[in-house]
Amino acid sequence: MSNFAHPDFSEPRFASAPEATFVRAPADGVLPENFFSTTNLPTYVKVGGGWKMPREPRMDATLVLDSAGEVWAREGRRVKGGDLVAVGQQEDGSEGIFVYANAFVGEAAEGEFKFMTSEVSREKPIDYGLMARILINERDRGGYPIWVTGPALVHSRARADMVWFIRNGFVGALLAGNAVAVHDIEASIFGTTLGMSGSGEATTGGHGLHMRAINKVRAAGSIKAAVEQGIITDGIMHACVQSNVPFVLCGSIRDDGPLPEVHTDVLAAQDAMRQQAIRATMAILIATALHAIATGNMLPAFVQEPDGSLRELPTICVDSSEFVVSKLKDRGTHQAFGVVTNAQDFMHILRLYVERELDARGADVREGRVTAVAR
Amino acid sequence: MSNFAHPDFSEPRFASAPEATFVRAPADGVLPENFFSTTNLPTYVKVGGGWKMPREPRMDATLVLDSAGEVWAREGRRVKGGDLVAVGQQEDGSEGIFVYANAFVGEAAEGEFKFMTSEVSREKPIDYGLMARILINERDRGGYPIWVTGPALVHSRARADMVWFIRNGFVGALLAGNAVAVHDIEASIFGTTLGMSGSGEATTGGHGLHMRAINKVRAAGSIKAAVEQGIITDGIMHACVQSNVPFVLCGSIRDDGPLPEVHTDVLAAQDAMRQQAIRATMAILIATALHAIATGNMLPAFVQEPDGSLRELPTICVDSSEFVVSKLKDRGTHQAFGVVTNAQDFMHILRLYVERELDARGADVREGRVTAVAR
Amino acid sequence: MSNFAHPDFSEPRFASAPEATFVRAPADGVLPENFFSTTNLPTYVKVGGGWKMPREPRMDATLVLDSAGEVWAREGRRVKGGDLVAVGQQEDGSEGIFVYANAFVGEAAEGEFKFMTSEVSREKPIDYGLMARILINERDRGGYPIWVTGPALVHSRARADMVWFIRNGFVGALLAGNAVAVHDIEASIFGTTLGMSGSGEATTGGHGLHMRAINKVRAAGSIKAAVEQGIITDGIMHACVQSNVPFVLCGSIRDDGPLPEVHTDVLAAQDAMRQQAIRATMAILIATALHAIATGNMLPAFVQEPDGSLRELPTICVDSSEFVVSKLKDRGTHQAFGVVTNAQDFMHILRLYVERELDARGADVREGRVTAVAR
Amino acid sequence: MSNFAHPDFSEPRFASAPEATFVRAPADGVLPENFFSTTNLPTYVKVGGGWKMPREPRMDATLVLDSAGEVWAREGRRVKGGDLVAVGQQEDGSEGIFVYANAFVGEAAEGEFKFMTSEVSREKPIDYGLMARILINERDRGGYPIWVTGPALVHSRARADMVWFIRNGFVGALLAGNAVAVHDIEASIFGTTLGMSGSGEATTGGHGLHMRAINKVRAAGSIKAAVEQGIITDGIMHACVQSNVPFVLCGSIRDDGPLPEVHTDVLAAQDAMRQQAIRATMAILIATALHAIATGNMLPAFVQEPDGSLRELPTICVDSSEFVVSKLKDRGTHQAFGVVTNAQDFMHILRLYVERELDARGADVREGRVTAVAR
Repeated sequence: MSNFAHPDFSEPRFASAPEATFVRAPADGVLPENFFSTTNLPTYVKVGGGWKMPREPRMDATLVLDSAGEVWAREGRRVKGGDLVAVGQQEDGSEGIFVYANAFVGEAAEGEFKFMTSEVSREKPIDYGLMARILINERDRGGYPIWVTGPALVHSRARADMVWFIRNGFVGALLAGNAVAVHDIEASIFGTTLGMSGSGEATTGGHGLHMRAINKVRAAGSIKAAVEQGIITDGIMHACVQSNVPFVLCGSIRDDGPLPEVHTDVLAAQDAMRQQAIRATMAILIATALHAIATGNMLPAFVQEPDGSLRELPTICVDSSEFVVSKLKDRGTHQAFGVVTNAQDFMHILRLYVERELDARGADVREGRVTAVAR
Repeated sequence: MSNFAHPDFSEPRFASAPEATFVRAPADGVLPENFFSTTNLPTYVKVGGGWKMPREPRMDATLVLDSAGEVWAREGRRVKGGDLVAVGQQEDGSEGIFVYANAFVGEAAEGEFKFMTSEVSREKPIDYGLMARILINERDRGGYPIWVTGPALVHSRARADMVWFIRNGFVGALLAGNAVAVHDIEASIFGTTLGMSGSGEATTGGHGLHMRAINKVRAAGSIKAAVEQGIITDGIMHACVQSNVPFVLCGSIRDDGPLPEVHTDVLAAQDAMRQQAIRATMAILIATALHAIATGNMLPAFVQEPDGSLRELPTICVDSSEFVVSKLKDRGTHQAFGVVTNAQDFMHILRLYVERELDARGADVREGRVTAVAR
Repeated sequence: MSNFAHPDFSEPRFASAPEATFVRAPADGVLPENFFSTTNLPTYVKVGGGWKMPREPRMDATLVLDSAGEVWAREGRRVKGGDLVAVGQQEDGSEGIFVYANAFVGEAAEGEFKFMTSEVSREKPIDYGLMARILINERDRGGYPIWVTGPALVHSRARADMVWFIRNGFVGALLAGNAVAVHDIEASIFGTTLGMSGSGEATTGGHGLHMRAINKVRAAGSIKAAVEQGIITDGIMHACVQSNVPFVLCGSIRDDGPLPEVHTDVLAAQDAMRQQAIRATMAILIATALHAIATGNMLPAFVQEPDGSLRELPTICVDSSEFVVSKLKDRGTHQAFGVVTNAQDFMHILRLYVERELDARGADVREGRVTAVAR
Repeated sequence: MSNFAHPDFSEPRFASAPEATFVRAPADGVLPENFFSTTNLPTYVKVGGGWKMPREPRMDATLVLDSAGEVWAREGRRVKGGDLVAVGQQEDGSEGIFVYANAFVGEAAEGEFKFMTSEVSREKPIDYGLMARILINERDRGGYPIWVTGPALVHSRARADMVWFIRNGFVGALLAGNAVAVHDIEASIFGTTLGMSGSGEATTGGHGLHMRAINKVRAAGSIKAAVEQGIITDGIMHACVQSNVPFVLCGSIRDDGPLPEVHTDVLAAQDAMRQQAIRATMAILIATALHAIATGNMLPAFVQEPDGSLRELPTICVDSSEFVVSKLKDRGTHQAFGVVTNAQDFMHILRLYVERELDARGADVREGRVTAVAR
């Protein structure tokens, strides 16, 4: 995980650069021609004589100057007619906006003959020890790791491990779709997921069990109520409710039900996700292309520390195929580190390494853990 | 494509079966305990002394008896408090509901040693000739083939082929997400998709082009307006607008923009998709897990002809990996025929075979084509 | 793991069946027309009035009657001109040969609507506990588990786990290619695999390290000599040499070097593999399509116990993609159980579960383990 | 396809460089310590005061100086005790050997934010037109395209297209394994591949048909004889025999049979492949990891024209998954261009584009084609 220093804005190219230009949006949700389109990299905007970083940075947004002189990264759909929107397409500062592309991207590759140069491959080693240390450090310094998961996590019975991470303070927020919660709740009530038994057998009549699970929660009024009424007695959603870990369930056209807490409007869902993404100091994306890319789009590639310094935002993407990780990178989340494996196995080994690391660090740290759980 | 005869309801087991039982729903969107959960197979409900097939059949729904004595397959969320909902879990008729599981599923496998028995494999031959004939037949008898596509279709430049199918009357409706339309419109306006040139190169500044394309359409007010104003001059959406082919764009949390016509509420999106699915006589699902499974959930496995007879609903699922096809089947769309290939290549060859078949059938048929285009 | 009883040969269809017919092979390695081609299922041949099972059963072989009246499954290339070869294509006993296809294949599927019916999927749970128990049982009753591995095992640093299995008596024999040994030895000598560091970085000059490792072993004369001379100081090959676990390294056209022990003639390699396959009571196939299918072809689907009873031969196939497992089944190894995951993670968790199970079984068993190691 | 100029050896760093050092090999197949290990990039060795390119370049070889002062790239196993072998590990000329790494590798990537930067993806467009033009150009200027294929090509019935390429002069040599020929010949004799019918159905008794096909060829004595005797009447091997296109069938441990022409010793097989690779001016690698990597290892990344100039060796790698292409690149064949699609579809579209291009070029070219066929 690399840290980096801000650019030296006393350099002539920065000192002589013009102020950024802002133009009023012609209508709600419509941007001026030639608007500046953001990336997830550290960005600096020259306003009022100085270089400011936009607040709530993300890619695919526009830059809005508010009346207090603050610059915000904001989705185009949220811009109001008359808002001041940055224009220009140069990222080198020559139009008053500088994208610090080399902050983390690393040195350019030399033209040397090497083996094993692919970025993402099942043949690359997976450093669970490092991931465990980062995760514990994030928890212990009050960071906010967000977990974004697909239904395979529940399907393949990594539920117990996910519950363990939730109960032990490693999950800032859980971002998922309706299906994760449905499978998890079916498992709690009926012991199956999509009617498949714990040993992987399709069961007679099992095709309706997820619908029955949904119906019970709808009758209770909410997942939270179903937990409190003893309908849901274990699992991921149960742990989130009990440990007060916020969850965002985003709707999709594939949803059965849906469950009551699901945001069926995707823009509301995006806004709810973004509230979590803004706080994120680490992201763990497991077995979901849709939610992983959605989250990647909302995340900056970096975390700004309270002292103003920046570091790369640790982003782990787990999938059974190289394709999903490559796709995430192709959509701009270049900082993602890919782990090509089965979700169930990933969860199991990561937990094992976290437990070992906690043991190695000794009792004081574990008390810290208790505190974290209590928060 | 197999046809099948209805069961012989004069058989004693049917004649002696009880009527189906209906119980009132306790509240809006909440079903009675023990509700019957539907499949996509031909289903018969004993009401008023006879066996009726539910209208608008689909899986994961409930069966509602209306005041006119008609039975409907209806999503749980659409059931109103007080509606009469079928209960029971037996599918063999013994509780008044019969699921005709063997209608299409075929003979049970014998215990014989064979090679090459997997259902879905890149090593299986792809019969483009058969698919072409089915597609032409559907068009020419007034069928309604729905096409459900992921963005890879546009990304990899099968746009021209998709346009050809639209213009020549082979597309009843297009079901897709925001991204398909965004990539297609970026290609029309800027000649790129996600900033990638037609030869596959990432371009400088290209990362913002999809946002600029979206902004132009938002400024115009709608895709239709953007076509009419000459902003969008070619491509898939242009062809849909010009040929009056209905399209349903379903929102997701990953969406940039979104474009104006996108249904941002996923339940509204489902309802819009379902209006198309109800009419479908064929389904072609290309390079999308999310939309393919969503559509599969809404489709019966069969088509009922005007004369009451039934036939299997031709369902083709195209993806680069066996996994998506297997997942679709694992979610119950057993009738899907899998084609494991690249979306671009699939489109190109299917078009070629359709053109050849049309040539072989001669001029009269092609006039039929012109008529179809004109509709 | 199912056991099964032999067929009841007093049944009329068996009692009235003719003797099998044998015809002389016309030349070395050439079979008579209409020769019987074997499967991996339990097979019975009527000779001398009784039903005999062929010795050394495997698929894709022929059946040879020797002068002592014994029947052998034998590869066509090993048949000599004049050998008596069984003819006939019926597998139902009507020509004197009965293939007991239903012994393990299970009941035919009913025509019922179910979810999650695919045979191989990353979404299926993986029962590591069961695999651990089977493996321990095999070891403790003197079974002979063969491990067949691809280079990903070494590449991704599951080396330490593989060494643990070797040292603790769980590996009857190791079957692999030149590359497994090359990567393993490069890791021992240089700390890299194909020049990739333990943290996954390509190193300068690293592309030549595997060639340097090979050269050192060729200079020493053999892997065994290189271990004894202290050139190879740890890893998989080192453990095999030290623990007297036989290894078979089969050559391929992709081989660098090759290492001295490699069988460069593939027929000699097959014969060496088959000597191990004949003894196998369990097979674990990891991250290799070529060697897994080669081994599957040589294995019966069953183990015959000393008392004559039969049980299914536990066959585990691990790969990152469903495709390899499906391909193995498509080539006839229907008994294979697929685990879709990363090889490194599989090894790590399997070892963990074996250790836990050994702990649960207590000290006596572990002494059994020591004995096993000492063998 | 880029051309490149040789380095300017009058530059001081080259002029002042020492001569390369050669040390005698200590024994047959054993290299001196610190031997130079080759890459597939243009390489220059300073001997006799000038810079020479090694003959028969390939990666993973050593450089041998013969008595005539010529330098050869040679596999270590082929080096004789006493041969003069280049030593040194520097590739910058400072030890008398210069690897021209930037010849083709292209400019180092800048640190700019871009989408779609992955090297290999199913989402990248496939330029069949360009591939068709390259292939025709190679044929028409007397180039030597080698085709390296896996059995999926036959399995999925691209046989007819492959035959077309062979008959029309586009195939310099065919490199494959036993299975390609076995499937092809089974298809000719029985109309199945591994017992699978042309429409993808497993057939009763089909599991033995490949063995019967092999037996017929073994009885005939050779594939060539089987063609001449009318046993094999169509297909790939038939076309190779009739059109005098050389084929190399390399043995593997998975082989059934094998067929008579198969090189069962993998070193002999490598030598036979290499005779073809040395002549190659283009390589098309389809649906095979093993043979593709083997061939990639033997090929330089460039072609030297008769006038001494160099150009990149067009290398196309086709597979259903990104993994195989990435693996090929990870083993050093960086020049490979990946096409992620089904082998059957690739063949069909490539042929279509070649036919169209030939039509566009008109009659004279087609006469050229006839000549090519006649060769």
